[in-house]
Amino acid sequence: MPEQIGFIGLGIMGRPMALNLLRAGHALSVHARRAESMAPLVAAGASACASPAEVARRATLIFTMVADTPDVEAVILGTGATHGAIPSGNDSGTGVSATTEQAVIAGLQPGTLVVDMSTIAPAATRTIGAQLRAAGADLLDAPVSGGETGAIDGTLSIMAGGSDAAFARALPLLQVLGANIVHIGGPGAGQVCKACNQIVVAATMAGIGEALLLATASEVDGAKVRAALLGGFAGSRILEVHGQRMLDGAYQPGFKASLHQKDMRIVLETAHALGLALPGAAQVAQYLNALVGQDQGELDSAAIHLVQRWLNGGPTPATD
Amino acid sequence: MPEQIGFIGLGIMGRPMALNLLRAGHALSVHARRAESMAPLVAAGASACASPAEVARRATLIFTMVADTPDVEAVILGTGATHGAIPSGNDSGTGVSATTEQAVIAGLQPGTLVVDMSTIAPAATRTIGAQLRAAGADLLDAPVSGGETGAIDGTLSIMAGGSDAAFARALPLLQVLGANIVHIGGPGAGQVCKACNQIVVAATMAGIGEALLLATASEVDGAKVRAALLGGFAGSRILEVHGQRMLDGAYQPGFKASLHQKDMRIVLETAHALGLALPGAAQVAQYLNALVGQDQGELDSAAIHLVQRWLNGGPTPATD
Repeated sequence: MPEQIGFIGLGIMGRPMALNLLRAGHALSVHARRAESMAPLVAAGASACASPAEVARRATLIFTMVADTPDVEAVILGTGATHGAIPSGNDSGTGVSATTEQAVIAGLQPGTLVVDMSTIAPAATRTIGAQLRAAGADLLDAPVSGGETGAIDGTLSIMAGGSDAAFARALPLLQVLGANIVHIGGPGAGQVCKACNQIVVAATMAGIGEALLLATASEVDGAKVRAALLGGFAGSRILEVHGQRMLDGAYQPGFKASLHQKDMRIVLETAHALGLALPGAAQVAQYLNALVGQDQGELDSAAIHLVQRWLNGGPTPATD
Repeated sequence: MPEQIGFIGLGIMGRPMALNLLRAGHALSVHARRAESMAPLVAAGASACASPAEVARRATLIFTMVADTPDVEAVILGTGATHGAIPSGNDSGTGVSATTEQAVIAGLQPGTLVVDMSTIAPAATRTIGAQLRAAGADLLDAPVSGGETGAIDGTLSIMAGGSDAAFARALPLLQVLGANIVHIGGPGAGQVCKACNQIVVAATMAGIGEALLLATASEVDGAKVRAALLGGFAGSRILEVHGQRMLDGAYQPGFKASLHQKDMRIVLETAHALGLALPGAAQVAQYLNALVGQDQGELDSAAIHLVQRWLNGGPTPATD
């Protein structure tokens, strides 16, 4: 009997990912908090479920793709709604909530594999995985990079953490969703790798932003600087894409600053728990805090360059 | 009559660059402070000159490739030896010094073009250029990236600042030395671009270094993190080369930390003069200061990752 597949969380990322699984010929049981999020999936042939628990009663391989740590805890364990200072009913749009009796764990079949593709705290992933394994199931953490475009095109980079058996079991389905799929290590290793990815992206963007500040203040054409650097050792995909965004002031997402802020919070919480000094990550996180604080969190995260310009007297939301 | 060419400064970079010009069939008048630096060039057919002034009396297109701002000032104007706190007789190895009567300006022929390929302060470049133009000559600033390998292979990236006429005149010779040659703008624009390049390289290296710290502290394999990130949006030439250096602890240069420290000093002096806040560049410069302060300036500048490790309790020179 083929594996029965579930998909929970049908936001900007989850919706096109679930559609790609349907198009690849897989039957799908889906859930999202808002019925309207399920409608396009149901129209494409998926079965709507009233709760994560109902998905778990129907499926033995369940994808979750929600916004933040408390959302994953809510969906899988039903505990996230009371998590710390961050409400699970956040506004970042994946639209999932659950009480304990509605959560995956309440409907879990023995041998089920949950594949969490959300970006959340590595420590929380390890705790959730331990609870699933205690219930006779398993967890693969498999966060992604590549954004909405990668989700639509099925070209996401996927960083997986978990047992070899869990990775092997999920791999044929991950290959529907992504193009660059790496098994990083044991439970949580995928989330650690995603945190590393977000550090490098943020640091590179901040460096490029400062370079463009220096060019502009020196009355040198930033476009020519970008072109020269692209051809040399300083070249990167981020310089190519986000360097151009900064030159154009084109900050439509892409990847929202509010989500990058959340990811850098995870980085810094993890560093705090580990007793690890990451001064660069801490500094860039402040730019994202300032962006969100000035109601610019819906912009692409390359808009950290806007904050670098505010810092140097550029037009702010208050002056616009 | 073909242009008579001079080359001043025959260190790690200048020597292979001058050799490439000779091999391309150009007669060359050369000078270096130490006779032994001139020997391999003379053996390859160059004429040795006793001073920069003698080079200027023989040549109408003069390359300079020395270590720092005071060195260029000393060679061209003869003023660098008394420049600020930084002695021109530095230990960084290009071996050039000159009094005013020995300097290029003392032997200058009208219409001469000086092409300075050193990495120096943009403000100093503009001042030197103004003095050369007042003497009926011209200056093109044309700093490079690509290191010793690029110099030997003739594949340097060259970032040029100066008039269209100066750029056009130098271009056929620059094409012997480099592969990616961009005319960024007017006088000083090449140096500004090089400063931008060094900001981006330093920031990207620091971000990659912090990512690897997080991976290691989380007991996740840094090599797998590097491989996963290389395939995605965080990929860069720096992750490829310096990420591997950091994983291997392989810090033979490459590009010396002491020179990157000097370049970041130029960045921060320029930012200070402009009244420009560059917190990321300032932070990374501290790592380079610490490296040089601990007598590690001869290591490749990717060794900033060593300082990130010292900061987190890794073995220091004192504990080794």
